[in-house]
Amino acid sequence: MHTVIDPALLDPSGAGSDLVALTRTICDIPSVSGDEKALADAIETALRGRPHLTVVRDGDAVVARTNLGRDRRVVVAGHIDTVPIADNLPTRLVGADDGDGAVLWGRGTVDMLGGVAVALALAAELGAPGSEPAHDLTWIFYDHEEVDSALNGLGRLARNHPELLHGDFAILGEPSNAGIEGGCNGTMRVEVRTRGVAAHSARAWTGENAIHAAAPVLARLAAYQPREVAVDGLVYREGLNAVRIEGGIAGNVIPDACTVEVNYRFAPSRSVAEAEAHLREVFEGFEVLVTDAAGGARPGLDDPLAAQFVKSVLATTGGVPAPKYGWTDVARFSELGVPAVNFGPGDPLLAHKDDEHLPVAQLAQCRDALRAWLLGG
Amino acid sequence: MHTVIDPALLDPSGAGSDLVALTRTICDIPSVSGDEKALADAIETALRGRPHLTVVRDGDAVVARTNLGRDRRVVVAGHIDTVPIADNLPTRLVGADDGDGAVLWGRGTVDMLGGVAVALALAAELGAPGSEPAHDLTWIFYDHEEVDSALNGLGRLARNHPELLHGDFAILGEPSNAGIEGGCNGTMRVEVRTRGVAAHSARAWTGENAIHAAAPVLARLAAYQPREVAVDGLVYREGLNAVRIEGGIAGNVIPDACTVEVNYRFAPSRSVAEAEAHLREVFEGFEVLVTDAAGGARPGLDDPLAAQFVKSVLATTGGVPAPKYGWTDVARFSELGVPAVNFGPGDPLLAHKDDEHLPVAQLAQCRDALRAWLLGG
Repeated sequence: MHTVIDPALLDPSGAGSDLVALTRTICDIPSVSGDEKALADAIETALRGRPHLTVVRDGDAVVARTNLGRDRRVVVAGHIDTVPIADNLPTRLVGADDGDGAVLWGRGTVDMLGGVAVALALAAELGAPGSEPAHDLTWIFYDHEEVDSALNGLGRLARNHPELLHGDFAILGEPSNAGIEGGCNGTMRVEVRTRGVAAHSARAWTGENAIHAAAPVLARLAAYQPREVAVDGLVYREGLNAVRIEGGIAGNVIPDACTVEVNYRFAPSRSVAEAEAHLREVFEGFEVLVTDAAGGARPGLDDPLAAQFVKSVLATTGGVPAPKYGWTDVARFSELGVPAVNFGPGDPLLAHKDDEHLPVAQLAQCRDALRAWLLGG
Repeated sequence: MHTVIDPALLDPSGAGSDLVALTRTICDIPSVSGDEKALADAIETALRGRPHLTVVRDGDAVVARTNLGRDRRVVVAGHIDTVPIADNLPTRLVGADDGDGAVLWGRGTVDMLGGVAVALALAAELGAPGSEPAHDLTWIFYDHEEVDSALNGLGRLARNHPELLHGDFAILGEPSNAGIEGGCNGTMRVEVRTRGVAAHSARAWTGENAIHAAAPVLARLAAYQPREVAVDGLVYREGLNAVRIEGGIAGNVIPDACTVEVNYRFAPSRSVAEAEAHLREVFEGFEVLVTDAAGGARPGLDDPLAAQFVKSVLATTGGVPAPKYGWTDVARFSELGVPAVNFGPGDPLLAHKDDEHLPVAQLAQCRDALRAWLLGG
């Protein structure tokens, strides 16, 4: 197994095929969450010592920055860990003779080492002699994205070195089929609880049924009409759903407690506090306990910098901006006041699948769209 | 530990105190379900060889019958097993100097070895020379009542020797505070199920929420008005209750299935088939699966034989007939076409409790009421 990235792969004069080889090298260094050290070392080695970059290592995260004195700074970030390997490494390149039609199969090709390869190639190139980016650049490669969010490397960087995440706009290289997926919905989980009085079911009238008491909770959920909310030009669809219900002790006991776990996905124009207030209104009269919450992220596509990026992507990949519904690490940038979008090669529906595979043409598309924009095109 | 019952305790000329001693002897022979052999042996030994009785042993059940050629036959039955001992044996007699005010503490005193002692004393007495019962008598002492109903000794007798259970009226000596508790409600459990389509909760609109689909099930349960039904002069109160609800896979998945377990307690005038038809009507439009059912038992108090018994009990113990709500083994007699009631010493609310205890005055009350009636008084 290679654990070093051949410097020739990062030669900006190389053709598109080098980006495929770079992606394969990166994928073939196993980096399941918690085991990212070898890949982090390889990335650090590849970037450290390049005169246009200042490199910081934090755990298994690597941050490389230009300091060109530009007015604005763009952050490009991607996680280097993968979900467990499912007998799908090393990578296999299928239809290689076919050029643009070739497909790269294997763990990480989609989520998201293809995006990491694009970022690594551009980090080596942009700002080096003969390449003058229009903005200062921060490249972040981080660990532990696929596990408990308390371990998340980007979250750790935000706590340890918040200055390293600062910028005017951020791009997360998560798979988006080489289109821009902007911002993300927020998410909140609450438990709506009802209480009763236990009794033998043969003498039900001596008790109070907590499951029956939950009838209005389900009725309100079933009748709820989720909003569609335009934010910075993208329309976010909300959702309010029971994801779990639990009640009852035994087949002959009137239940004294019932819990409905509800997940609310809310547009990024609504704060966590506003989301909670909304749920307390929806479930008025019931005990509501917030168990989990994470704010959304505005797409920020109304920013002129972002508008240029949208234009560059549209011209290069044909990708039209769309809202991101799931919660992603773009929200961590949003918390720091940095608008952020997802943009990367690969079909997000293939993430985590055993048959994860990537049409390699998207690698060069993403690189070219990003390069053109960052060079001020 | 005694494992033999002193024949002197069964001398009908003895005073009430002998019945207390008999009860203590029976309680002090441990007979937790599955371990009834010693007590069954002692009961068999006490009755076998008495000229007025024919004794049959089946496993750890003992059946003793008179064959006096009477027109009618009364069955008196009781289980000899107890729930596990909780450091509450041997029995303790508290306030013994106080005569009628004495209280016997210990496992089985209430459920239901007090009733067994009453039956055993009368089995030895009635039909012996000088004692002419008005009816033929069948005394059943059986095992495995406190465990899985598939093991129930009365059920086994009904399968192996149904003729031994035949009679015109049956009394189960379960604790009823020396009053008559007639018949019992039937019980049925069904699962009402809803289906949906799983999806990520960030894209809820691509799925269908099975918990939301259960809203009308809970609404119908909450709105349901249970009946009160007069059967043979006793009023039975029904009940329809969710006893369990379950749905959901994970906090970010739209659930594709939800199950509401419902327990229906129905008056003994309704058959199991009618109960099922009623539930299918209540939950029309939903998948309904019957998981458990047992018919109720009519109290049969409109029978002249029963009416005499009611009169005798009222005169002796002051007990007014009341409906029994929980399912008991009287239903096994009902299935065989034998009307049956519960009648025995002890407070049913103390059954299975660690502080199980019996005011001993109820022992003689029950014996006297039963004796007077069986002698045709």
